[in-house]
Amino acid sequence: MVTIIEEKVQQAQALLESLDLDCWLTFVRETVSLADPALPLILGQHLTWQSALIITRKGERIAIVGNFDADAVKTVGVWNEIIPYTEGVSGPLRETLGRLDPRQVAVNYSRDDIMADGLTHGMYLLLTDYLKDTPYLRRLVPADAICGALRGCKTPGEVQRIRAAIAATEQILEQVSRFARVGRTEIDVAQFVKGLVSDRKLELAWEPKQCPIVNTGPDSMIGHGIPAELKIEPGHLFHIDFGVRQEDYCADLQRMWYVPRAGETKPPERTCRAFDTVRKAIEAAKAALRPGVECWEVDAAARKVVVDAGYPEYGHGTGHQVGRAAHDGGGILGPKWERYGKTPYRKVESGNVFTLELGVMVEGHGYVGLEDMVLVTADGCEYLSHPQTELCLLGA
Amino acid sequence: MVTIIEEKVQQAQALLESLDLDCWLTFVRETVSLADPALPLILGQHLTWQSALIITRKGERIAIVGNFDADAVKTVGVWNEIIPYTEGVSGPLRETLGRLDPRQVAVNYSRDDIMADGLTHGMYLLLTDYLKDTPYLRRLVPADAICGALRGCKTPGEVQRIRAAIAATEQILEQVSRFARVGRTEIDVAQFVKGLVSDRKLELAWEPKQCPIVNTGPDSMIGHGIPAELKIEPGHLFHIDFGVRQEDYCADLQRMWYVPRAGETKPPERTCRAFDTVRKAIEAAKAALRPGVECWEVDAAARKVVVDAGYPEYGHGTGHQVGRAAHDGGGILGPKWERYGKTPYRKVESGNVFTLELGVMVEGHGYVGLEDMVLVTADGCEYLSHPQTELCLLGA
Repeated sequence: MVTIIEEKVQQAQALLESLDLDCWLTFVRETVSLADPALPLILGQHLTWQSALIITRKGERIAIVGNFDADAVKTVGVWNEIIPYTEGVSGPLRETLGRLDPRQVAVNYSRDDIMADGLTHGMYLLLTDYLKDTPYLRRLVPADAICGALRGCKTPGEVQRIRAAIAATEQILEQVSRFARVGRTEIDVAQFVKGLVSDRKLELAWEPKQCPIVNTGPDSMIGHGIPAELKIEPGHLFHIDFGVRQEDYCADLQRMWYVPRAGETKPPERTCRAFDTVRKAIEAAKAALRPGVECWEVDAAARKVVVDAGYPEYGHGTGHQVGRAAHDGGGILGPKWERYGKTPYRKVESGNVFTLELGVMVEGHGYVGLEDMVLVTADGCEYLSHPQTELCLLGA
Repeated sequence: MVTIIEEKVQQAQALLESLDLDCWLTFVRETVSLADPALPLILGQHLTWQSALIITRKGERIAIVGNFDADAVKTVGVWNEIIPYTEGVSGPLRETLGRLDPRQVAVNYSRDDIMADGLTHGMYLLLTDYLKDTPYLRRLVPADAICGALRGCKTPGEVQRIRAAIAATEQILEQVSRFARVGRTEIDVAQFVKGLVSDRKLELAWEPKQCPIVNTGPDSMIGHGIPAELKIEPGHLFHIDFGVRQEDYCADLQRMWYVPRAGETKPPERTCRAFDTVRKAIEAAKAALRPGVECWEVDAAARKVVVDAGYPEYGHGTGHQVGRAAHDGGGILGPKWERYGKTPYRKVESGNVFTLELGVMVEGHGYVGLEDMVLVTADGCEYLSHPQTELCLLGA
């Protein structure tokens, strides 16, 4: 069976070919403390000393690593040539580049794409020191296109794992709908969810302090908030933003309910209207999402629905990629704001997995937010999750 | 009660004063995927959008963060001024620097110190873009001295937590000495250890794949190795390198035993001689370790004992700092090899916590390796762990 790491290394070689680049260098050290996001894709374990992982368009796969890391790198099975060193990486690195003589050496930095920016500034300076007096100093180029496509275009094996993470997340959210009720707090619900994740021996898809995010009522901490001692009360909108990581791949979904007051058999009109608007905005994004469109166009389609309905613009993008990380880098379905850099101008590609997410506040009730996940196909996209189509009553 | 984060932020301000620096800027984004190692010291949680954390010698503590992160940053309690933004960090950042008008803006990069090198190259380029046309572009300086001392000089609260992590690690190693026996494999022992860590609701101090490292006999994978299906057999040296993380602080220890053959009541002479040499070398390092010496001097003292006894030099440094990470950066007690950069030339400081570790191979039996932890005091150092002084028999 081909491992996902083998799939990704093969994909990297094909990307070098299609991008007309000769050589990709991932240059790292002590990755337990600061891991280049590219590393899990092509190695799947940590390195201690300064290490150079080189993939070429011709198919060379060369790992120059500290002597104590060499055996562990061998066990990965994708690196054909492992060059261990004791005193310093620079000699073998210069020698290897001299032998390959690539026209470009792509290294992992990017102003915009967080997941293509694993080279630290100190390591960049070290690399330029090591390559001083070689022709390769002037052949360094950013590897953002490689990193972006390698991470963003999911292989079949990756999509399968993402589907499994979504299924597990949806099952847990189903249990939340029965656990959450009047009198329980945001923290109670968060602990319940964490318990289920731990029982299933899964991981949380993002920082435990903020996974799940649980919001009840109008006074809750929206956004990247931390669950509080706020109690679920009648009249609240109850909202959860949550995902698990299963076999290294993540899900990221939002679901919500209305908590009925005595005698209420359906949610108030204002909350339904907000829900329908959010639902329609997500559907508008989904309709716009297909290979070749620029990411900001998808955001604009959803944003227009919200603004046209008279709600204030939401202060975040309409979607991000998901994969090994809940926020998986690459193109972002966001507006052309400074903080997104050039990522909204990227073109959507087949194989991308995005969230579609947004929300609005309803005064006196709380936050209406939904988030689903979609896979970009050859000519559009399809839901990976099962969208919530109705604002249901909690405890109903 | 003063939190450790408050202790560290106060320490940072004092360091700016003593280093004659006006301002320290930690500039990060999406820290779940790539976290500047300084962040846990001064914030203790993650940030999603581009964020600027500024500490000045005058005592300002300013966090410019994305609007959805602001509430969570408030809960930390150490940031006096929180400036949330929606579209981009650059405006508020330039404005804030203009108001503070610092003579230097120290940012987190270092060729040598992994833990002072949290700024990625892409983020460095972004920062220079944002500061273009301001005087602060030319006032950027590396913050390696701040990061190194802040991380390296442990507060009383930090030392207390490290002691607790060591105590838990020693208790688990004690249980290993009863579990490990002839017929069990390296993997069996590793799983037993992981089970104990999980039962105690602790974390492993480094990557689970290589924590613990378990070595039995002469054919095992030494160094940063992965436990294998190798069985413990009579005549083996059995060795384990392990530590837990408890309340965010780590331990890192090595212990070992000899597995007696039928009729043997003590280890063979050759293994005892190796053990004594390793023990003496560690004691020599301990005797040399005090504030003001350069790190390489401590390594040289230990290395000399091993070489004088006729063993080959070990291919790694004699010690590293320990704290929030098992490999905690700063000065390294290592030889003047390229891969250690300038870290062996750093001066030892009071409050540093180091490992002292080294080993030799004994042909036909396996690896003799020991590792202890010490705290540098005003005029020397003291053991934090309880050193192993004798090569005991496994199962005895």
